[in-house]
Amino acid sequence: MNILITGGAGFLGQQLIARILSQGGLRLADGHGTRTESIGRITCFDQGLGTLQDPRVRNVAGDIADAAQVRALVDRDTGVVIHLAAVVSGTAEADFDLGLRVNVDGTRALLEACRAAGHVPRVLFSSSIAVFGGDLPAVVTDATTPTPQGSYGIQKLIGELLVQDYSRKGFIDGRAVRIPTVVVRPGRPNGAASGFASGIVREPLSGLDAILPVSPDTEMWLASPRAVVTMLLRALELSAQDWGWQRSLNLPGLTASMHEEIAAVKAVAGESVAARIRYQPDEQVIRLVRTWAARFDTSRGRAMGFSADADFASIVRSYIEDNPGALAGMAR
Amino acid sequence: MNILITGGAGFLGQQLIARILSQGGLRLADGHGTRTESIGRITCFDQGLGTLQDPRVRNVAGDIADAAQVRALVDRDTGVVIHLAAVVSGTAEADFDLGLRVNVDGTRALLEACRAAGHVPRVLFSSSIAVFGGDLPAVVTDATTPTPQGSYGIQKLIGELLVQDYSRKGFIDGRAVRIPTVVVRPGRPNGAASGFASGIVREPLSGLDAILPVSPDTEMWLASPRAVVTMLLRALELSAQDWGWQRSLNLPGLTASMHEEIAAVKAVAGESVAARIRYQPDEQVIRLVRTWAARFDTSRGRAMGFSADADFASIVRSYIEDNPGALAGMAR
Repeated sequence: MNILITGGAGFLGQQLIARILSQGGLRLADGHGTRTESIGRITCFDQGLGTLQDPRVRNVAGDIADAAQVRALVDRDTGVVIHLAAVVSGTAEADFDLGLRVNVDGTRALLEACRAAGHVPRVLFSSSIAVFGGDLPAVVTDATTPTPQGSYGIQKLIGELLVQDYSRKGFIDGRAVRIPTVVVRPGRPNGAASGFASGIVREPLSGLDAILPVSPDTEMWLASPRAVVTMLLRALELSAQDWGWQRSLNLPGLTASMHEEIAAVKAVAGESVAARIRYQPDEQVIRLVRTWAARFDTSRGRAMGFSADADFASIVRSYIEDNPGALAGMAR
Repeated sequence: MNILITGGAGFLGQQLIARILSQGGLRLADGHGTRTESIGRITCFDQGLGTLQDPRVRNVAGDIADAAQVRALVDRDTGVVIHLAAVVSGTAEADFDLGLRVNVDGTRALLEACRAAGHVPRVLFSSSIAVFGGDLPAVVTDATTPTPQGSYGIQKLIGELLVQDYSRKGFIDGRAVRIPTVVVRPGRPNGAASGFASGIVREPLSGLDAILPVSPDTEMWLASPRAVVTMLLRALELSAQDWGWQRSLNLPGLTASMHEEIAAVKAVAGESVAARIRYQPDEQVIRLVRTWAARFDTSRGRAMGFSADADFASIVRSYIEDNPGALAGMAR
């Protein structure tokens, strides 16, 4: 079986590909049971070429909104499509047209390609908790109405609706998961407005100063890259019957305050590392983050076998294990 | 001030244009009060030419999904845009691509045209209660999560999300109203799956037999064309401040069973006219209608000054008053 991963050159895509390769196959349930499909080829599609080299990985660079190009990516053996390609929140807000083009047109081009293939591939769409915001209940549940406050959340919700309808029509077997804020993102900051939640761990550990632009008691809904990769694979494994009618799901995560993040850095890496975090309030970021959902009751997701990180310290530890090269700050 | 009405050649568009012309102007509130804007030109845009002739009406035929064509419809004096153009429910379900093209691409083309005009026109989007469906609470409230069960509802909800975001970004001053099932639609049946609710009144009154494909105790959420036109004008009149953040609204309507419809036909037009309605269950229609919302608590809409018909008999009477030529069945 072939797999297509859009946005596959990003850090999450690369971790996902590495995990699939190390497993050697994908577990997929259907109405009859669970089988393990061995991997023929993984196509890693992104704006630039993926860096992970493996005989089973084909790195392709291109434009997700180019329908013809995307059509060529899905062949009869493409049993699974994982759609990670997206313009992130800050960028989608700053460049409205780019956001629509990539997040809406790109998603539609991909869904059309999957429909045209004719064999109803399993399609996983990475949505986001950014579909929630504004005047929310204290705890967001599976029944809470999405009320996106920014273009990114709007565009992700439109993608979910398309996945829902393409699935209902029998064009694809779709699943959309609303991913918590992913921490700790390795590498350089991206355009995500939530980037500081990773920055205040990543930068101090690598010997750099970091700025916390929101109050330390600000809570966020978080998950580690490891946990997210595990949950993505779970979302694919579940059968269409397991998913049922509603193809969107709030993924489990961990509610943590920035104070808890700092404490975890302190506990794992020491006082001097944590001292590199400076609190410098940014009213614009504060206003934005105030509209985000931080507490969820993910009963449906837990019943479907999804789970996230136990505590923030384990998130920091998994980052350290996965990124040995990014710890210059700890060596001093 | 100029007005653009897409889908203006349809029966609702024509009634709306007639009402605006007879009023001679549009009441528009802003932060400072309510003014009446006199009408310069009304552009009636549709697939075919509108039949209503008036020196102030410019009838234009074209394709709502043709971005260049739509761009040319919105000039600097276009203060109000009313977007009625749509592929209806049955057609959107039968022709998925046409539904996406008209209901999504067309809406986007229009919103882009309004954005490009640069003067933040007031844009009214006709959404539908078809955004609700499936496993619903007994009474749908302003807080109920939209769960569209068909392509039409999905596409209307995508339109709402775009209107919401274009408004938030300050590109337009948008409003989206979820219109109840409109009865009695004059003229010939269209592709709407709910068409029978009009047919069982319209056909008997014009001397034709009509089929009721669902159980007589089936309830629906209804409004007359007159009430809908009044509510559309109210949606335009209200200021951006009156609307606030949330630009989508469930409009008031009337819950009536098909039995009540038949009784109203009997009361207004007599036993022999009502006898032209034949109950002939259609399992496919029954399954579809079962997923529709029939009871709403429209507190927000009522607080904003919207109201619908008092009872079904007044809906029948308003149809008779508005369509004197369509009553061959009563003359006998």
